[in-house]
Amino acid sequence: MSLNASKSREQIAAELSELRNEYDSLKQAGLKLDLSRGKPCTEQLDLANEMFSNLDDYDFRDSGGFDTRNYGELSGIPDMKKLYAEILGVKPENVIIGGNSSLNLMFDTFVRAFMQGMVHSEKPWSQCGKVKFIAPVPGYDRHFAVAEHFGIELIPVPLTDDGPDMDLVESLVAEDASVKGMLCIPVYSNPEGVVFSAETVRRLASMKCAAPDFTIIWDNAYGVHHLYEDYRPDLPNILEECVKYGNDSRVLMFASTSKITIAGGGVSCIAANTENINEILHTLSVATISYDKVNQLRHARYLKSAENVDKIMMRHAAIIRPKFEATLDAFRNNLSDIEGVHWTNPKGGYFISLYVVPGTAKRVHELCKNAGVTLTPAGAPFPKGYDPQDSNLRIAPTYAEMDELHLACRLLCLCIRIAAYEKILAK
Amino acid sequence: MSLNASKSREQIAAELSELRNEYDSLKQAGLKLDLSRGKPCTEQLDLANEMFSNLDDYDFRDSGGFDTRNYGELSGIPDMKKLYAEILGVKPENVIIGGNSSLNLMFDTFVRAFMQGMVHSEKPWSQCGKVKFIAPVPGYDRHFAVAEHFGIELIPVPLTDDGPDMDLVESLVAEDASVKGMLCIPVYSNPEGVVFSAETVRRLASMKCAAPDFTIIWDNAYGVHHLYEDYRPDLPNILEECVKYGNDSRVLMFASTSKITIAGGGVSCIAANTENINEILHTLSVATISYDKVNQLRHARYLKSAENVDKIMMRHAAIIRPKFEATLDAFRNNLSDIEGVHWTNPKGGYFISLYVVPGTAKRVHELCKNAGVTLTPAGAPFPKGYDPQDSNLRIAPTYAEMDELHLACRLLCLCIRIAAYEKILAK
Repeated sequence: MSLNASKSREQIAAELSELRNEYDSLKQAGLKLDLSRGKPCTEQLDLANEMFSNLDDYDFRDSGGFDTRNYGELSGIPDMKKLYAEILGVKPENVIIGGNSSLNLMFDTFVRAFMQGMVHSEKPWSQCGKVKFIAPVPGYDRHFAVAEHFGIELIPVPLTDDGPDMDLVESLVAEDASVKGMLCIPVYSNPEGVVFSAETVRRLASMKCAAPDFTIIWDNAYGVHHLYEDYRPDLPNILEECVKYGNDSRVLMFASTSKITIAGGGVSCIAANTENINEILHTLSVATISYDKVNQLRHARYLKSAENVDKIMMRHAAIIRPKFEATLDAFRNNLSDIEGVHWTNPKGGYFISLYVVPGTAKRVHELCKNAGVTLTPAGAPFPKGYDPQDSNLRIAPTYAEMDELHLACRLLCLCIRIAAYEKILAK
Repeated sequence: MSLNASKSREQIAAELSELRNEYDSLKQAGLKLDLSRGKPCTEQLDLANEMFSNLDDYDFRDSGGFDTRNYGELSGIPDMKKLYAEILGVKPENVIIGGNSSLNLMFDTFVRAFMQGMVHSEKPWSQCGKVKFIAPVPGYDRHFAVAEHFGIELIPVPLTDDGPDMDLVESLVAEDASVKGMLCIPVYSNPEGVVFSAETVRRLASMKCAAPDFTIIWDNAYGVHHLYEDYRPDLPNILEECVKYGNDSRVLMFASTSKITIAGGGVSCIAANTENINEILHTLSVATISYDKVNQLRHARYLKSAENVDKIMMRHAAIIRPKFEATLDAFRNNLSDIEGVHWTNPKGGYFISLYVVPGTAKRVHELCKNAGVTLTPAGAPFPKGYDPQDSNLRIAPTYAEMDELHLACRLLCLCIRIAAYEKILAK
């Protein structure tokens, strides 16, 4: 079946009836599949198995001779700082190693901003009235949830192939001092898979901001998460660029090993200029005694170097690239004839961003759900969960087994077509 | 040498001169000893070694069949909730398992109180003007640092052998709604080693508080940290008592395995009534995806049950009890003749609380420091670091090797005597 303008309403209604029959029989199969979250699959988690026996020698000392089992070393073990410094292109002393969650480090950053203020704040953000942040859209729902938890008003800015629409960003930050920051996923953004261009990075670092404490949350969540051997993004270093333009404190970089080693017990980090690092450590020295340094040691021994991390990521790619490609094949084979339906072709990261017929994303989500396939709620990649086009669906192909994925994609494509036909008939 | 009232100034001056000679020769030895923090020693850390190979079978599933390596299970794995429930005498569903730091869970509690308010708050504490907390003294310096970080005014209340002076506590909380809570270490308190009596627990649970959101931070840091086989404190369960008197939301219990397994990578928890647990989980669902559940699994497999934890703690006791006893022996043998000098005889926990001649604690700290023995700063166990008597010193005997400890105690006792003599001569 294909959808084209020449079909009569009767033809479409007849075809819809057939599609519904197919849907009903798939529904009978009692599927229970999940394409909703960017979770690694078991095979990926198993890649890190050796990490769980690399302390079998009972040598718990880091490269500085410190017993990682005891209190101390608030900013992290030198081995792990060195590794993240290499990955992020900063100095080890500009890195703080955190717990298992970089999201939590971001949450704590907002806590600090609202309760104490950032290094160049005149007062805590809680005393600043309305605080606004720029949110490139579609974006990461958990980023938005954190910002909204603190009462921040998110200003959606469209993502282009080069990153956020910088003309719009520059105009938003230039005059309004209540625009205090911006959420960024610079490499393989969630869910678009966009890689910021060099020009975007430079404009972010150099733009004039009305707020002296304008803060870029630079969530490098997928910085090394490449799907192909022959493509590595080559961005200028945002911290270096900020320093170049005299905006040294503007950026806080975040990363974690959640999708390098294991999702539930990785090691996160924050990197920034010295002023920010000192400020963070000052608060951290009250908030905890140290993070889990044994897990840091385990990670440092397993990951070794940035070069070795790239090798590990290629092992992940070998597992998940076929899943991305199978999903994209299904879309190409089943959705190409439906006007208005399109999708991204990411070179890394964890998501495909799928655009169904405008006005039908929620319906597609509902149809899938009723037949046992869980998708991220339609609208989730937008502030307050509101997609003005009701068109975007974030697809996460990594977690499912290959045969499950084929089945889920078949159902998903069927639901997209049903919703598209329903919409035409409702006119 | 002994110090008694019949000695002339000349005798005392002559003896002080001899003491100083002894001090100088000890100083020459170039000691580098630390009695400042409650850190486990290497031998204690080694007790948990098997915990680092108990995932060698690569079976990462918890008792619910969940792969702990992946995202999810925000409130913790069932195995660890069950264990803490058993230790704390609550239901598993009233436990949330945290990261490696219970102090961090307490910090986050204050963040929540100030930014959102507690379950019975009329508004966030940041909008309540002055917030006061009751601080039993001497108490834990890091508790005080957290509270003071949030601008809380600490009201010192003396600790008796039964816990905080409850007549004073009751009068403080009855009328003043700005007194919003209290810091408690109910078992083997830091540094006094006090165990709250049943009557104290009941009065804390039942007392009338002007603040509807009065909150007890019940830091059960040393709940299982017994030094002797034949003594186990038997407190009523504070949560049950609170429920009995209709103050269900009053208490938040905290604990961690920092001094059961390892200090740098243990597993913490918070326990409370359902209303509090739901409120905490609500915020936590924004702040993180999950804590490190692999470390939870590692711990659950090693610790097994409350009964087994008690056995493990007796292995710790076998290592550290001789250190406590050697320290107490040194005090008894060297300080008994100095009027005004006394100390606690704890049955568990990590500290001995030592009272030197009033007005000399800072001087003793300085003398020790100059000869290479680090003590917790004098005054640290008091709000703002101010001991009105300048008399208390917190002694942590666990970390040092036995021969180091003997040497450190010898020097400490010498410094106490020197400071005492100096004070007499300064009159």
